[in-house]
Amino acid sequence: MVNFKVNVEYEGTKYFGWQRQKGAITVQEVLEDTLSKFLGEKVHIFGSGRTDSGVHAINQYFHFRTSKTLPVEAYLYGLNSWLPPDIRIKAVEVVPAGFHACFSAKKKTYLYRILNRKAPTAIERDFCWHIPYHLNIDIMNMASEIIVGTIDFSAFRASMCTTKDSIRTVYEAYWKKEGDHLNFLITANGFLHNMVRIIVGTMVDLGRGKITLDDFRTILASKDRKRAGRTAPPYGLYLYEVYY
Amino acid sequence: MVNFKVNVEYEGTKYFGWQRQKGAITVQEVLEDTLSKFLGEKVHIFGSGRTDSGVHAINQYFHFRTSKTLPVEAYLYGLNSWLPPDIRIKAVEVVPAGFHACFSAKKKTYLYRILNRKAPTAIERDFCWHIPYHLNIDIMNMASEIIVGTIDFSAFRASMCTTKDSIRTVYEAYWKKEGDHLNFLITANGFLHNMVRIIVGTMVDLGRGKITLDDFRTILASKDRKRAGRTAPPYGLYLYEVYY
Repeated sequence: MVNFKVNVEYEGTKYFGWQRQKGAITVQEVLEDTLSKFLGEKVHIFGSGRTDSGVHAINQYFHFRTSKTLPVEAYLYGLNSWLPPDIRIKAVEVVPAGFHACFSAKKKTYLYRILNRKAPTAIERDFCWHIPYHLNIDIMNMASEIIVGTIDFSAFRASMCTTKDSIRTVYEAYWKKEGDHLNFLITANGFLHNMVRIIVGTMVDLGRGKITLDDFRTILASKDRKRAGRTAPPYGLYLYEVYY
Repeated sequence: MVNFKVNVEYEGTKYFGWQRQKGAITVQEVLEDTLSKFLGEKVHIFGSGRTDSGVHAINQYFHFRTSKTLPVEAYLYGLNSWLPPDIRIKAVEVVPAGFHACFSAKKKTYLYRILNRKAPTAIERDFCWHIPYHLNIDIMNMASEIIVGTIDFSAFRASMCTTKDSIRTVYEAYWKKEGDHLNFLITANGFLHNMVRIIVGTMVDLGRGKITLDDFRTILASKDRKRAGRTAPPYGLYLYEVYY
């Protein structure tokens, strides 16, 4: 058996997220079904983690084991010709038997994109959160500094999130203005469910002046999801990189 | 009768271009039908010019005349709630009776986006031309200088283009590298049919070394479409701005 690591990009718009589930089309299902057809054997794939419905991935990774050892190029070109155009294999490599796309991941980066201008957008409607009022990026960057470190992120996780350990280490977090876009990059050793989207939603409240930086600190310290802002919409979120 | 100037953004993917035609859905048709329903009278709109099937517009403009003088905000919010999400009105203003979106236009800028990296893309598949081999942007910028000026662009127009005057003035043209993207911006007093896409197709031949800068000069001087490169795909092209 050979262990393959695969790098995949997808547009999440039409999928009910990554994770296979009954009665809804998911990225994992499409990849597993295509890979199984392609190799003529039942294949299970293991992703670096889940992404929610509508969330995109610029660099998602998964691994799978098979006895059918085709050349790496055959996987790359063969699979892409069978996959729908909103899922593209970017790279395939042979990895040691012990490699696991989820458990071997050391850290991850997510990108959140905001379009901050008055006029709405047709072209980017599925690819960023359109916010028509002014956002103060400087104060949002001050809040970004506050969340760097090893912290209990209970205030910034979905109420239905059941993970026992709510402490995560954020290595880097910052907003960068690029034209009309405000792009948020956050790197951590792991993320709670909806963590990035609730952080962004709360930072947007801060950036438009609905809460202060002290409020932001208090919300984080409260460990209470109900005190944080809304969950930012999924279509602005991208799994940007996974580090092994 | 009041004359309104409207700024619109659209994703061209699902439309057979701007211009109304029988048996195919176009941007002009959707806008005219929506505006007519909205105002309760038959409305004709006049665009700054056509865009082809699959071509996008970040800033397209049209004008229309009506006796129903609603406030500008009513047009903006009302129309957007009736339009499909891939067409968005960005601004509406009252203009003098003599304003004509096409004839009053002084110059236009088009943007062409290339994704220049080895790996294919899922997210940007409808928004740029993916070119997996190396392109020399420096030589492409030398060619850009060659096309600035008042020039006969017969070599760079669709063979079916019937406009008598094939001379256009290009004010500015350049390529800019942004991450993995090569973005081409070209501003002129007007464009022949497929002119930007044939220029880009020929410059890509140059950038990958299939032709030389001297060949490029010879092609331009030949006024012969058959000597130029392929027509670059429509989904990388954006009507970027119209200047009045």
